[in-house]
Amino acid sequence: MNVFHEIRAGRLPVPETPCLVVDESLARENIARVQQGVTAAGCQLRPHIKTHKMPYFARLQLEAGAAGITCAKVSEAEVMADGGAEDIFLAYPMVGDFRIKRALALSQRERRLILAVDSLEGAKALSDAAAAAGLPLEVRLEVDTGAQRTGVLRDHAVDLAKAVAALPNLRLTGIYTFKSLVLHGAPTQDNDAAGKEEAQLMYDTAQVIRAAGVEVQDISVGSTPTWRQAAETGLVTEVRPGTYIFGDWMLTREHCATFDQIAVRLYATVVSTPAPGYAILDGGTKTFPMDIPLDAEPYHYPGYAIPIGKDGQPDWNVQLRRMNEEHGILTAQNGETGLTVGQVLELVPIHVCTAVNMQNHVFVAQGGALRPMDVAARGMLV
Amino acid sequence: MNVFHEIRAGRLPVPETPCLVVDESLARENIARVQQGVTAAGCQLRPHIKTHKMPYFARLQLEAGAAGITCAKVSEAEVMADGGAEDIFLAYPMVGDFRIKRALALSQRERRLILAVDSLEGAKALSDAAAAAGLPLEVRLEVDTGAQRTGVLRDHAVDLAKAVAALPNLRLTGIYTFKSLVLHGAPTQDNDAAGKEEAQLMYDTAQVIRAAGVEVQDISVGSTPTWRQAAETGLVTEVRPGTYIFGDWMLTREHCATFDQIAVRLYATVVSTPAPGYAILDGGTKTFPMDIPLDAEPYHYPGYAIPIGKDGQPDWNVQLRRMNEEHGILTAQNGETGLTVGQVLELVPIHVCTAVNMQNHVFVAQGGALRPMDVAARGMLV
Repeated sequence: MNVFHEIRAGRLPVPETPCLVVDESLARENIARVQQGVTAAGCQLRPHIKTHKMPYFARLQLEAGAAGITCAKVSEAEVMADGGAEDIFLAYPMVGDFRIKRALALSQRERRLILAVDSLEGAKALSDAAAAAGLPLEVRLEVDTGAQRTGVLRDHAVDLAKAVAALPNLRLTGIYTFKSLVLHGAPTQDNDAAGKEEAQLMYDTAQVIRAAGVEVQDISVGSTPTWRQAAETGLVTEVRPGTYIFGDWMLTREHCATFDQIAVRLYATVVSTPAPGYAILDGGTKTFPMDIPLDAEPYHYPGYAIPIGKDGQPDWNVQLRRMNEEHGILTAQNGETGLTVGQVLELVPIHVCTAVNMQNHVFVAQGGALRPMDVAARGMLV
Repeated sequence: MNVFHEIRAGRLPVPETPCLVVDESLARENIARVQQGVTAAGCQLRPHIKTHKMPYFARLQLEAGAAGITCAKVSEAEVMADGGAEDIFLAYPMVGDFRIKRALALSQRERRLILAVDSLEGAKALSDAAAAAGLPLEVRLEVDTGAQRTGVLRDHAVDLAKAVAALPNLRLTGIYTFKSLVLHGAPTQDNDAAGKEEAQLMYDTAQVIRAAGVEVQDISVGSTPTWRQAAETGLVTEVRPGTYIFGDWMLTREHCATFDQIAVRLYATVVSTPAPGYAILDGGTKTFPMDIPLDAEPYHYPGYAIPIGKDGQPDWNVQLRRMNEEHGILTAQNGETGLTVGQVLELVPIHVCTAVNMQNHVFVAQGGALRPMDVAARGMLV
């Protein structure tokens, strides 16, 4: 019986709203299941902490067998280091003197800190800073496999790898990518093909780099939608999913989690019901992220969060389609929301990573109690 | 010479990116200009602090002559009270026992705390709690004038006003609304007509309520796009704009601020330029809010923030149209971004209220120096 059921049954009170509640047992099950799958594939798991941004959950992932953790920003990594993480991959181009300075300081605290490069300019600046500080740095080269964001284009990967490997004070140990649900350069719903392509493209890239005389120890890929398929090819050494720990509505639509595996809920109070057809929640754009557009192909999200009915299942009658900063306007498909002033509504976030980032703290349920926990790396943008 | 010019000229260093910088002198000019306009119209100004969420800027608004401040949430109001605000209007239906409890505690600390009701259920719960605590509460009735969110529908306003006025421990002193750029129930670009309609609708509503024997002392309306037009009708007693203090690109499009009046910038570093046609900034959906959709009628925003060129004017060639959590992908209209790895880009936020809310702290420029300031009420959702 998960905590959301306990709350629905009135056996656990909802905290002050709007708030986000995590069922720790469900999160632990998600951690264990993915760890088991990655280990069974002979691969290593280095989960991305962007989803939870809390050292406590990073520790649970490490205790379950993760090889280390992944962060995007140095300020996030500092928070995780403060919380006990000793092996961190900063999977983001290490660019900017201010950021390199913090990364160098962090490298002295960590058993292993892996930085990232995707350009010669960036790698040179990093090499120079490492020389000035007298600190050698481990780096991985980011390779673009179709996401069209950071990452050197594959055609240029071997030249850049050779140039980076030749720079003093940098030790190039691997390559990495983020592709997720992209196949042959276009968005796909085919996790299987996308994961396999991701692994194959990276393995092929590693082979070309190796043939040029540069050692490639680690091949790191993967996201929650593709980690299994990529790991099971046997072509990669590491996967970096993040969202799997909590799950969200998007993952159920992407066939990467079941509804019952989602370990988080948002709760909000109905503050106003001016007319039968709409009702207003005490959270708007400062509570519910808008990074996943409504109605877009291929998943057609009907609202910025999915209201859950008293039966614990999605209530498709009420949709959160319009918001102001502190107002979430629910509209009824059948003309009547049936909601009353003061009622607390349970909702499933569409995208949990950005939903957690809206909260100063979340409530973690374990052993029949809810305890507040700071989202310590929230807003850590540098 | 504003601070953004100083930064562009290399005379002031940009803080660690991504970050938000406020030019305090420009903010003070915005505060003074609006205060002067409201005072000249014989009206009172009660600015909404949702935009800045910092007690320092609330104090500047109060020192310039504001009658008090407006907050949306009780947790925001607590932060402002801690920072010295003594007269607060919580312009949001006071619903939820947990919230009422905090409002009651706050009422004992404040010289004046005005709460809001828009339903009889909500008002009764508030009246009961006030009785239990032995604390009378001042309330205003929210009336919907077209925004279709919170607020009693105008047809029901007089009945609800009578019922609220009859409740013990509540002292109904006024009515308020938020309509902004809505005219005859539909979005409009006509600030003048919208502001006048807002004032007229509320004055008419007040007259009907007064005719029913209920006193209406305060008529409070207004937003940055409509405060002037509403105030100058002479029909309202108070206006509550928020965004005017900093300004943003949206306000320039709504003809409520000039480009030179915008007191904030976002700065981000180019971390990757994998191909000539795109470049990646060190901020994505956790830095740049997405609450204002791209390309939508009537303003057609071309990106989630507006890049500024070396001449200090918008650079329409590069557009921030795609983001992941920590990646902002700039695309070039002419096929070449011209950006280089490590370059720091200046951007104007589309909507400053949600942009500030993304930051743990901002940098406030005054007297040739930048000092970090906590966004103390950030994430105060309750």
